[in-house]
Amino acid sequence: MKMIGIVGGVGPYAGVDLARKIFSQTRAGRDQDHLPVVLLSVPGVVADRTEYLMGRAAENPAYPVSRLILNLERSGATVVGIPCNTMHAPEIFEVIEDQLKQQGSRVVVLNMIGQVVAFIGEHHPHWHKIGVLSTTGTWKKQLYAHALAAAGFEPVVPPDDIQQQVHAAIYDPWYGVKARSSPVTDKARNRLLEAVAFLHEKGAEAVVLGCTEMPWALPYQAVEGVPLLDANLILARALIGHSYPDRLGPIEKIP
Amino acid sequence: MKMIGIVGGVGPYAGVDLARKIFSQTRAGRDQDHLPVVLLSVPGVVADRTEYLMGRAAENPAYPVSRLILNLERSGATVVGIPCNTMHAPEIFEVIEDQLKQQGSRVVVLNMIGQVVAFIGEHHPHWHKIGVLSTTGTWKKQLYAHALAAAGFEPVVPPDDIQQQVHAAIYDPWYGVKARSSPVTDKARNRLLEAVAFLHEKGAEAVVLGCTEMPWALPYQAVEGVPLLDANLILARALIGHSYPDRLGPIEKIP
Repeated sequence: MKMIGIVGGVGPYAGVDLARKIFSQTRAGRDQDHLPVVLLSVPGVVADRTEYLMGRAAENPAYPVSRLILNLERSGATVVGIPCNTMHAPEIFEVIEDQLKQQGSRVVVLNMIGQVVAFIGEHHPHWHKIGVLSTTGTWKKQLYAHALAAAGFEPVVPPDDIQQQVHAAIYDPWYGVKARSSPVTDKARNRLLEAVAFLHEKGAEAVVLGCTEMPWALPYQAVEGVPLLDANLILARALIGHSYPDRLGPIEKIP
Repeated sequence: MKMIGIVGGVGPYAGVDLARKIFSQTRAGRDQDHLPVVLLSVPGVVADRTEYLMGRAAENPAYPVSRLILNLERSGATVVGIPCNTMHAPEIFEVIEDQLKQQGSRVVVLNMIGQVVAFIGEHHPHWHKIGVLSTTGTWKKQLYAHALAAAGFEPVVPPDDIQQQVHAAIYDPWYGVKARSSPVTDKARNRLLEAVAFLHEKGAEAVVLGCTEMPWALPYQAVEGVPLLDANLILARALIGHSYPDRLGPIEKIP
């Protein structure tokens, strides 16, 4: 039996959001039609990814995450998603792959960023300029910028000052989405909306929400006519497509 | 390390809803503050609970669910919640407990219905008449009615015709919450609202949403002044209280 594994806890809500999106993207009319999913959320053992990439956390989060993936595999997972864009920086993601190989793991870990770029290439090959909003870790490492450029798109990212506002919309302990997600604060939402508007002004034809907390603040398919691409939703579809391709629901509802 | 296990898949959305509620009820300002949770959702192996209680499904869902709980325990779970009220019928729940004992399991499985009644006894001892909405399986077996009466409350449940409408609001393949949850259909919501109004008219001072799909249709703390008690939210708090009591968040936001 194939089973989808989710590395939860990075962050906790992103994990349950990915599970929910796997269900919503599956063709199913009753409980029994839904796919096998295992979610392991142990956030206390995984350091913040941006903090690590900025040199402010000592342990590479790749190590605890590899152990969580091996635990998922023991529970039956055959394909795994990590609902945290920043975790896909090569300094982290390649270490995860190495660790799994060393342990003889046979699980397939999908690369969220690769899946988002592949999705755009498949469904929107005519787009040229793609905006990206992300944490400062993902922004500094240019994860989406490199992947989009390699696929022939022109990435559009915020300048330093706007990037700080975007990161704060996620991380600020008073108004950020990680601290206050239900409901999200107006301040967090507005900072993200301002950044979308900025990227659009710079020519972006669509904007990738490249941090899994962002769709909580912007649960929209588009803002002022600019399509928003939810990386977690695309990862959900990729996980279904990899394990039970004939159960993948129609794409109409997403940009 | 203590870890909360969730038997997902019964139904799938109830599993992620319980996980989300565990996070929302935890005192936490950043990812790392959240509690360890493992969710295993394998709905294809678990027959519908009401169908089994009505004699229309052969295998007792207790057997596959016990195997899922043992799998959760191997992943590290020390206390487990099953976010399906109907699964707590003695014909099912007691068999789960037996199976776990036979296998030498040390995991603690909380009884959702017992926890809801204990919550009312602790926070609302002055209430007399408590309304209950549930699936027809839970209704027929009088799970809440017996537990409430044993605790000194007077249960108020729908008559046959209204019960059929309530069950259909969850199970109807066209408009029921299990088939259409985002958004929930007006028809499903209205049938549940009518049932709440009926129970209130019969003297209920509060209504237990005794099926984990119901809060998707009625995401309110009260309807027309009648407090709604979300069994999944109460189970989430009980799981935190059992494993990390000092991390339980304030109760202000729930009735």
